[in-house]
Amino acid sequence: MPTSTIELSGHIIDSMMLPRIFDAIMDLGGSFRVEEFRVGQSKDEPSYTRIALVHDTDDGLHAIVAACQQQGAVLVAARPVRTESAPRDGVFPDRFYSTGNQPTQVRAGDAWLEVENIEMDCGIVVEAGRARCVAVSEVRGGEAVVVGHDGIRVQPVERARRREIFGFMTSQVSSEKPKHLVIRELALTMREIRGRGGRICFVAGPAIIHTGAGVHLSALIAGGWIDVLFAGNAIAAHDIESQFFGTSLGIDLRNGLPIEAGHEHHIRAINRIRAAGSIAAAVEQGILRDGVMYQAVKAGIEVVLAGSVRDDGPLPDVVTDMVEAQRRMRAALPGVELCIMCASMLHAIATGNLLAASVKTVCVDINPAVVTKLADRGSSQTLGLVTDVESFLRELSECLATP
Amino acid sequence: MPTSTIELSGHIIDSMMLPRIFDAIMDLGGSFRVEEFRVGQSKDEPSYTRIALVHDTDDGLHAIVAACQQQGAVLVAARPVRTESAPRDGVFPDRFYSTGNQPTQVRAGDAWLEVENIEMDCGIVVEAGRARCVAVSEVRGGEAVVVGHDGIRVQPVERARRREIFGFMTSQVSSEKPKHLVIRELALTMREIRGRGGRICFVAGPAIIHTGAGVHLSALIAGGWIDVLFAGNAIAAHDIESQFFGTSLGIDLRNGLPIEAGHEHHIRAINRIRAAGSIAAAVEQGILRDGVMYQAVKAGIEVVLAGSVRDDGPLPDVVTDMVEAQRRMRAALPGVELCIMCASMLHAIATGNLLAASVKTVCVDINPAVVTKLADRGSSQTLGLVTDVESFLRELSECLATP
Amino acid sequence: MPTSTIELSGHIIDSMMLPRIFDAIMDLGGSFRVEEFRVGQSKDEPSYTRIALVHDTDDGLHAIVAACQQQGAVLVAARPVRTESAPRDGVFPDRFYSTGNQPTQVRAGDAWLEVENIEMDCGIVVEAGRARCVAVSEVRGGEAVVVGHDGIRVQPVERARRREIFGFMTSQVSSEKPKHLVIRELALTMREIRGRGGRICFVAGPAIIHTGAGVHLSALIAGGWIDVLFAGNAIAAHDIESQFFGTSLGIDLRNGLPIEAGHEHHIRAINRIRAAGSIAAAVEQGILRDGVMYQAVKAGIEVVLAGSVRDDGPLPDVVTDMVEAQRRMRAALPGVELCIMCASMLHAIATGNLLAASVKTVCVDINPAVVTKLADRGSSQTLGLVTDVESFLRELSECLATP
Amino acid sequence: MPTSTIELSGHIIDSMMLPRIFDAIMDLGGSFRVEEFRVGQSKDEPSYTRIALVHDTDDGLHAIVAACQQQGAVLVAARPVRTESAPRDGVFPDRFYSTGNQPTQVRAGDAWLEVENIEMDCGIVVEAGRARCVAVSEVRGGEAVVVGHDGIRVQPVERARRREIFGFMTSQVSSEKPKHLVIRELALTMREIRGRGGRICFVAGPAIIHTGAGVHLSALIAGGWIDVLFAGNAIAAHDIESQFFGTSLGIDLRNGLPIEAGHEHHIRAINRIRAAGSIAAAVEQGILRDGVMYQAVKAGIEVVLAGSVRDDGPLPDVVTDMVEAQRRMRAALPGVELCIMCASMLHAIATGNLLAASVKTVCVDINPAVVTKLADRGSSQTLGLVTDVESFLRELSECLATP
Repeated sequence: MPTSTIELSGHIIDSMMLPRIFDAIMDLGGSFRVEEFRVGQSKDEPSYTRIALVHDTDDGLHAIVAACQQQGAVLVAARPVRTESAPRDGVFPDRFYSTGNQPTQVRAGDAWLEVENIEMDCGIVVEAGRARCVAVSEVRGGEAVVVGHDGIRVQPVERARRREIFGFMTSQVSSEKPKHLVIRELALTMREIRGRGGRICFVAGPAIIHTGAGVHLSALIAGGWIDVLFAGNAIAAHDIESQFFGTSLGIDLRNGLPIEAGHEHHIRAINRIRAAGSIAAAVEQGILRDGVMYQAVKAGIEVVLAGSVRDDGPLPDVVTDMVEAQRRMRAALPGVELCIMCASMLHAIATGNLLAASVKTVCVDINPAVVTKLADRGSSQTLGLVTDVESFLRELSECLATP
Repeated sequence: MPTSTIELSGHIIDSMMLPRIFDAIMDLGGSFRVEEFRVGQSKDEPSYTRIALVHDTDDGLHAIVAACQQQGAVLVAARPVRTESAPRDGVFPDRFYSTGNQPTQVRAGDAWLEVENIEMDCGIVVEAGRARCVAVSEVRGGEAVVVGHDGIRVQPVERARRREIFGFMTSQVSSEKPKHLVIRELALTMREIRGRGGRICFVAGPAIIHTGAGVHLSALIAGGWIDVLFAGNAIAAHDIESQFFGTSLGIDLRNGLPIEAGHEHHIRAINRIRAAGSIAAAVEQGILRDGVMYQAVKAGIEVVLAGSVRDDGPLPDVVTDMVEAQRRMRAALPGVELCIMCASMLHAIATGNLLAASVKTVCVDINPAVVTKLADRGSSQTLGLVTDVESFLRELSECLATP
Repeated sequence: MPTSTIELSGHIIDSMMLPRIFDAIMDLGGSFRVEEFRVGQSKDEPSYTRIALVHDTDDGLHAIVAACQQQGAVLVAARPVRTESAPRDGVFPDRFYSTGNQPTQVRAGDAWLEVENIEMDCGIVVEAGRARCVAVSEVRGGEAVVVGHDGIRVQPVERARRREIFGFMTSQVSSEKPKHLVIRELALTMREIRGRGGRICFVAGPAIIHTGAGVHLSALIAGGWIDVLFAGNAIAAHDIESQFFGTSLGIDLRNGLPIEAGHEHHIRAINRIRAAGSIAAAVEQGILRDGVMYQAVKAGIEVVLAGSVRDDGPLPDVVTDMVEAQRRMRAALPGVELCIMCASMLHAIATGNLLAASVKTVCVDINPAVVTKLADRGSSQTLGLVTDVESFLRELSECLATP
Repeated sequence: MPTSTIELSGHIIDSMMLPRIFDAIMDLGGSFRVEEFRVGQSKDEPSYTRIALVHDTDDGLHAIVAACQQQGAVLVAARPVRTESAPRDGVFPDRFYSTGNQPTQVRAGDAWLEVENIEMDCGIVVEAGRARCVAVSEVRGGEAVVVGHDGIRVQPVERARRREIFGFMTSQVSSEKPKHLVIRELALTMREIRGRGGRICFVAGPAIIHTGAGVHLSALIAGGWIDVLFAGNAIAAHDIESQFFGTSLGIDLRNGLPIEAGHEHHIRAINRIRAAGSIAAAVEQGILRDGVMYQAVKAGIEVVLAGSVRDDGPLPDVVTDMVEAQRRMRAALPGVELCIMCASMLHAIATGNLLAASVKTVCVDINPAVVTKLADRGSSQTLGLVTDVESFLRELSECLATP
């Protein structure tokens, strides 16, 4: 019967690596024999186990090994990684290794190479002593792409040894929890990251403007708390609409009441920026004088406005080609340690797809379904907050304003 | 063919009375002939119309007349109201007139009597020159109950002539609107009502405690902003749990983290109050020293804790019989001009059932379905706010704290 | 330093007992020493561990022990259970042991007694060689109530060794899953249970009638698939309304269109049943001739209609006192092996409170929040299905109709 | 004081034109004088009114006129339409007339020209005796674009004179309604449209595949019920994944259980189609042998797969540029009379943006927020159905299968 032996070490019980591995083996119809097991006797001591995996078929065994690898198991008889040439631009070999978002290494010769820019659902290209994570749209014909499961080691980000909001509250989506303490801890995390020169990414949806929270996001940008802003056409258009007309989607932001014919304002705002040439040009020409996009131009942060098929206009700054938009988002992410996603399902999922599991992520939405959807995407470091985006940003901005 | 003639006056076009009447006639398969129509020439002038209704059948005509009455139409050939004796306690005559929650009058002899304590889905008892709205559970055998549709006049609360939050935003449930302005206007309305000696009712659900907003509700009560508090066993139990153990449903309110075995706290808290005899007794004995229920006892406001089948315990103050609970809630409502419902579907609907349409109502919940459900219940003065209850109460409390 | 030693055996890793125990110890600020660990070498072999627990304080250690007990750990130096007298009717001793819903035993002398009718958030009364689970409202003054944590053993229901819908899909609430296969398996489970004389409980909300699914629920009852029906005033009233008037909440069930003045129908239906005396009397008198309540009367199944404060009427069969309603529901539950909850948050939570963890539970609602809320309540055997209740009942009824 | 006179005719009261006009005037701070009013005396007779509008300022009056025009009012002293040249490609003149989605005419000389391909938030280009609706991204420098409000006539689609599902149930989003009757009527409408050679557009989201409803959508396509399919990368990828691997997003479609490592399947499926060159090529090469995309290729219907920034891959058939994707969608819409949108917020909104108000639209989603969002977008003919997409498609497919 096809057999493989894996080993696993660390906090393998309470970090859920071992329970998940036992689950996977049983779900996939395999069986196992625990050959060695040393349990950490106290909470700081690591455990170790070596397990022989058995399945009736080679394919079944491969599936089990793949599942165990994603949980951090390593094949004992580690052969070097194997590669095949990409048949042509934009196509992987059929048996390519599909990445997860956890730190991953490949064994080339005797060395383990760290896969650079790890990201879910990609391939690994090995070249000149380096291993890179590459999206299928970016692979070039002839590049050496990793296939099969040999010579691969995944090192899941471990659960923190102490109680903290990230990791601990993973998948907590309830609106029925106290949130101000979480926001205070988030502010602390932001101070720490900025203190050590780390970068913070913010993903923003249009409800930020509709709810009147644009001023708080503007303040965060002006205060230097945001290094990278990912958004779409809608939030930029409504932010600019609110500067030009005092409305957002036709609602008067001073009193919350709809303005007849106000629904035209966003398309008029877009047209004026198109006339100016770009948002930055509108700032230079003195046409746009405040708001989120103004502050982003002034602060010189990296902005990627990715288009979507429902866009009106769009604004001239919007990247309308989706492959190009992903490329620019990837280029902006290195160095990012924290990602805050507010009221934007589309852009939040798009960003989540690109993030390594080691990036702390906070997803804020009033709709629990959005928070659940993101938490399901597999980052072990996602904190979901079901709350009103306006009150979230107001509190966060207050916490950061006082030193 | 069966025919009746109705008349209608006031702002019948923009208050939607006339469009709804035309709808009803067509939906019910009837036809009509407009006999007279005088349109108000400017926005402050009332309009008037007299319409002959026709239907193939008597039953169909009755249904049309009933629908038109609910919109404020009056039968031209107004006969006096007709009554039949209630066959026995708790039972109406089969053809009883079922009330709406709009101001309603009945014609007895030449006089129109105002129906007292109007409330939806009840009957009208006429007795000694007075007309009372009576729930089916409260009617006594032999009382004269209104039947049919003769001699009845409904006067719908009209839409305000100016833009204001109540009425205007009716049925607005979006979370994507600016809310701080609405909260500021609500605070103004509360000041006005208190200024003229009106009463304010608050309906409270347990998420107020879970989210850490208990301190804000306590402050509102201590500040004299609430005259009547309707709630259930859960909020009282978790409020008291938070005073005894610092937790709510086992979550530590200081840091938002779950406490192992903390889920027992609420039942322990309930047991202690049962041992003390009542919440008020626990306050007197110095066992309960702060929180929402403590402040309610201290302020001496009217509290009705209505039980439900999912209650643990319950607390000794909870009214466990539902008919008795409705009776006490009804008794507390006269004089109430504003009702604020927060994070409680069950008690909010129960209260909504008892409220006259003239009572301004605000329903706050993070779940749009709750807000929609309440708005559908037919009060023309319901304002729905989809937002986080903690941030709502914090802001409202801040607005009211500064004079 | 305060120390206790626990032991644990079974499938302690993949059933999550051990990971949860390590979590609890760390969350509560304790530490541990693994004194012995034998891992099951294959998937059918049990594991065993003995762990010394340490905490700075006695209270902290007690909390840790309590948490470990809920996961199935047993104190090694097991002293007999301790009891104190209930101070008076309806009050437990302050340090009472608060039950979970997992099978629980208490040690009296040398014997372990199984706690009868186990249910969450109750106390345990030991008397004459028997241990009974008792709600606080039911305890009599002077009864011997278990206090502290000595002499208690919890035996969590283990995860199935094979892939099956119950247990396996625990907490799965997604609407984006294939549901017809789950429904087919549920039908199989129902056949099995009926085959061995087990009982099935159905908890029903009014949307069943509103969506036109009353015919399917009627068919299930007529087919003998339901032994116990828990519901409220609303579903019974709308079911009877639909028989009398063809509407549900004023919507014509033949075409889905609202009927003007149809909102009165439910209160008229209630009044007629009040006039008849009871639902059964209305059936006898030939007034009520079909529908869910008719079939329930005809089939002679146990029905508990528990009231709520939002009820109109109510129907004469509704139990209006909530403590009495819980008492009747408890009395109906022995022998129930499966509980299907459809479109009723209030009654589903009320029932969930009363169920032992060993009862398989299916919760069906179109609102994921309801399903999540129930799954959070701690039964390890709850399967959540986010779907339309009409299509669920239609499919289930079709599956059961064909032998 | 600035004054304009409008006139309005048709079923202006029950179609809500007049109530909305009165609302708009008051909301915008204007006043009015009704100069003439003739009410239709019976339900089939049209009404007519002529109203003088007054406002303190020219801008205010323009806003009122604009709002009245959207409701179908026409300026009495109709001057011809005015145009200005587009300053350059992709930019409208600043005062451009922003379109609604109702049938619209412009007056050029003595003739009223129908605006072709009417769509929301666009401009109108007048050229060579024709008027075209043009998106801002499509306008060419120098084209004559309509500015201001003179010479414009909007003719809102009127509410049906009889009870029917479209129009009647507009904005009805409740899950608590009977749905099978609506589905039966929808099937009838589809037969009628196909009978007269009209076209049907289907907008599809990935939950169709996840829930196992792909077979029903395939059957609709194979049966000739769909002429145009709008979708994204996800549904196509998961449909193809289900053909290659039997899974959708890693869930086994035969039993609803997750498959370890199954999350890779969709990216493997995408890679294979990229290797084949296109979906059609994969069909030709015999690689793809069934499913939604296979049937679409076989039936030769028009398919637009519009990309999004969250796409993996994407499939080679996906249009990655959003402006191009909108262009292709617009090109496919002429002749479409019915649009069915299932489980896709992004593509449903994108399509809704492009549809004329005269196209009947059905939006099906289990999430009421999606249905509300679409209904808010202003089509007067949108029917929202909150239900499970699998059961919707199964029933619709059954209704259409039986002649």
